[in-house]
Amino acid sequence: MSRFLRPGLSGLTPYTPGEQPRDIEFVKLNTNESPFPPSAYAQRLARQAAGDLNLYCDPECTALKQAASEVLGVGKDRILFSNGSDEVIAWAFQAFCDADTPAVLTEITYGFYSSCAALYNVPVVTVPLRDDFTVDIRPLAGARGTVFLANPNAQTGIAVGTELIRNLVSSDPDRLVIVDEAYVGFGAPSALCLTEEYPNLLIIRTLSKSHSMAGARLGIAIGDPGLISDLEKIRCSFNPYNINRMTQAAGIGALLDTEYCRANCATVASNREYTAKELRRMGFRVLPSSANFLLASPGKADAEYLYRSLRSEGVLVRHFDSPRLRDWIRVTIGTREQMDTFLTKTGKILGEKS
Amino acid sequence: MSRFLRPGLSGLTPYTPGEQPRDIEFVKLNTNESPFPPSAYAQRLARQAAGDLNLYCDPECTALKQAASEVLGVGKDRILFSNGSDEVIAWAFQAFCDADTPAVLTEITYGFYSSCAALYNVPVVTVPLRDDFTVDIRPLAGARGTVFLANPNAQTGIAVGTELIRNLVSSDPDRLVIVDEAYVGFGAPSALCLTEEYPNLLIIRTLSKSHSMAGARLGIAIGDPGLISDLEKIRCSFNPYNINRMTQAAGIGALLDTEYCRANCATVASNREYTAKELRRMGFRVLPSSANFLLASPGKADAEYLYRSLRSEGVLVRHFDSPRLRDWIRVTIGTREQMDTFLTKTGKILGEKS
Repeated sequence: MSRFLRPGLSGLTPYTPGEQPRDIEFVKLNTNESPFPPSAYAQRLARQAAGDLNLYCDPECTALKQAASEVLGVGKDRILFSNGSDEVIAWAFQAFCDADTPAVLTEITYGFYSSCAALYNVPVVTVPLRDDFTVDIRPLAGARGTVFLANPNAQTGIAVGTELIRNLVSSDPDRLVIVDEAYVGFGAPSALCLTEEYPNLLIIRTLSKSHSMAGARLGIAIGDPGLISDLEKIRCSFNPYNINRMTQAAGIGALLDTEYCRANCATVASNREYTAKELRRMGFRVLPSSANFLLASPGKADAEYLYRSLRSEGVLVRHFDSPRLRDWIRVTIGTREQMDTFLTKTGKILGEKS
Repeated sequence: MSRFLRPGLSGLTPYTPGEQPRDIEFVKLNTNESPFPPSAYAQRLARQAAGDLNLYCDPECTALKQAASEVLGVGKDRILFSNGSDEVIAWAFQAFCDADTPAVLTEITYGFYSSCAALYNVPVVTVPLRDDFTVDIRPLAGARGTVFLANPNAQTGIAVGTELIRNLVSSDPDRLVIVDEAYVGFGAPSALCLTEEYPNLLIIRTLSKSHSMAGARLGIAIGDPGLISDLEKIRCSFNPYNINRMTQAAGIGALLDTEYCRANCATVASNREYTAKELRRMGFRVLPSSANFLLASPGKADAEYLYRSLRSEGVLVRHFDSPRLRDWIRVTIGTREQMDTFLTKTGKILGEKS
C-alpha cells in the first residue's frame, strides 16, 4: 500500500460519451476510434478464446501481464489491467482522492474525470490553460491534491514534454501525479521512463486508440508497486474477474503485434498533418496535435453550424458546448479517404454559407 | 431515481476468488463453472464481433437489451447489464447502502458481499441460518437495511420459495430487497415475476453458470425502472462502455439459444441428484441443493483432509475455513464422467483413511 490511499464517497454526474449511431452509415470521426481493424493476431486469439467462455477468466491476467511486461519493459508488479482505462481512472479517484485531497484538473481535459469526482464526492480544483491551450505546469505544481493530467490533452491534442512532467512530479514527492496517456501512440513523448524513479507517478494507458481495441475495453495502469497494490485491492473488492477471456486474449495479440500498431499510428499521424495543412489552407485555426484527432476552429464561421451541417451530410465530428471550445470542432483522424470526404464536405458547407 | 439511493464510502477487504490453476490439468469442480461450452450461436456472434474491435461497443447495449427483454419477458427499462454480476452487486452497495442503511446478509452467503460492504464502508447486519442451513425469512424481514439474499444460497445451494420472497418484500415497502439469482437456472423458483408488483425488489442474475459464460462476464439486474435508473447513473459515471463488443454479441447468442441452456441445466440438475445419492450412500450428509453444486459433509472424516487429498489426486473442490462450513466441502456439478471421477477418488481417499 502507498501512502496516497484515501477513503472515498459518492455523488452522481454521468459522463456523456460521444454519439454511437446505429441507424445510418456515417463517416464516424467523433469518438477518436482507429480506422484500422484490430491486429489479425489479436483477432485470432480472441476467436480462440470464445470457445472456452464456460471457464472463468484468469483474475490475475497472468499471460497478458507477461506480454505487457515484455513490450513495455516494466516489471509485472508495476502493471494493472482494467476494463477500459475508464475503470482504473475511476478507481484512482476512489483510492487517491477525498475531501482533503481534491482532484487537480486542467480547465480543458477528459470530461470523464469530473464524472468520477462527482461519483466519489471528490472536490475538483481547476487550473487554467494558457491562451494558446498549452498546459502551464506551474499552477499544477502549486495546487494541493492529486493531479490528473491527460497527455496529450483530450480535446486539444497538445502534449507536454517529459522534462515538464519530471518537474511536476519531482516538485512535491508527497503529491500523486496521474498522467493519462490514452493518446500517446501518435507521436507524443511518454513519461513511462519516469515511473521507476518516482513512486508518486502513475501512468494510465488504453489499447482503444493506438491498438484499435476501443470495443475490447482494455486499460493499463503502470507505476510503483505500492500504487498498483492499492488499485489491486480495489479491483479485487470490486470485480476480481474484471477482464473477460476474449479481451485478455486479444490484448496479448494486440500488444505483441508491435509493428502493426506502429505502422497504423504512423499513418494516422501522417493523415493528421495532411488534414491540419488542408484545414489551415481553408482558413481554420488548428491546434498542434500529437493525438489521433485535431481541434480546429473555422474562424468567422460558426463551429456548431459546421458540426450540424457535417452531420446532415453524413460526417460525424464532435462539438463541445463549453465557453472555450464553442468555436471549435474536434475531428478524429481516420483514413486518407475519410479525411478527404471530411475536407470536401467542410469546404462545401463553408463555401455555401459565405 | 428511487428513494433508496444513498451516498457511499470506501474501505478495503478484497474478495478471494476460487483457485484458477494454470499449471496441471485438474478436474475442476471448485468455481461452479458449467462443464459445457458456450452455445455455438454465442460463439459465432462473439467471433464475428472480434473483427470490429476498433469501434467502441454500444454503451446502451441496445441489441443485447432487446434480446434479454424478449427472453425474460420484461421491459427494456427494467434491465441493466454489468461486467459480470459482481459489478452490479458492487454498484448496489454503493447506491443503496450507507452508514444508516446497513447491508443485511445471511450468515452463510456469497463471500463477495462483505468485500463490497468494506469497499463502500457499509456496515453489515448478519442474520443466522437455521440449524439445517435453510433461510429463515423472519429475522431478515425484521432487520433494518438493504437485504442481499442469494437464492439459491451460495455455498449451501438451498433455495427459498417465491411466496417467502413475496412475504419478505411486502413486509416493508420502504426496505429494498436484492435477490441474487446467480444459480437460478438449475431448478429453483425465480422471484422475477414479483418485480412488476414490487418496486423495492431488485433481481440480479449472471450468464456465468446456466449459460456457460463465466469467462465472458455478463451480469443482469432486473427491477423497477427507478432502481435501474439509479444503477445506470453509477454505471455511466463509472464506466459507460462497461460491456465489450464480444461479450455483448455472445450474450445475445447465449440468451436466444434458450433450448441449449435449458438442456445443459437439466443435465447438471440430473448429475447433481446422482452425485447427491452416491455421496449419501457413502455416508455423507448432503444439503438439498437447487444449484450447480453440492455442499456435502463427510461425517466423521475431516473435510479439509478430503479437500487436500482430492487436490493431490487432481480433483479440485472448495473448502471454506469458517466455523459452520469447516466440516463440509462444496463440489461443483460437472459432467457425469467428472462426477464419477470425483466419487471414485473420494471413496478411495476415505477408504484409505479408515
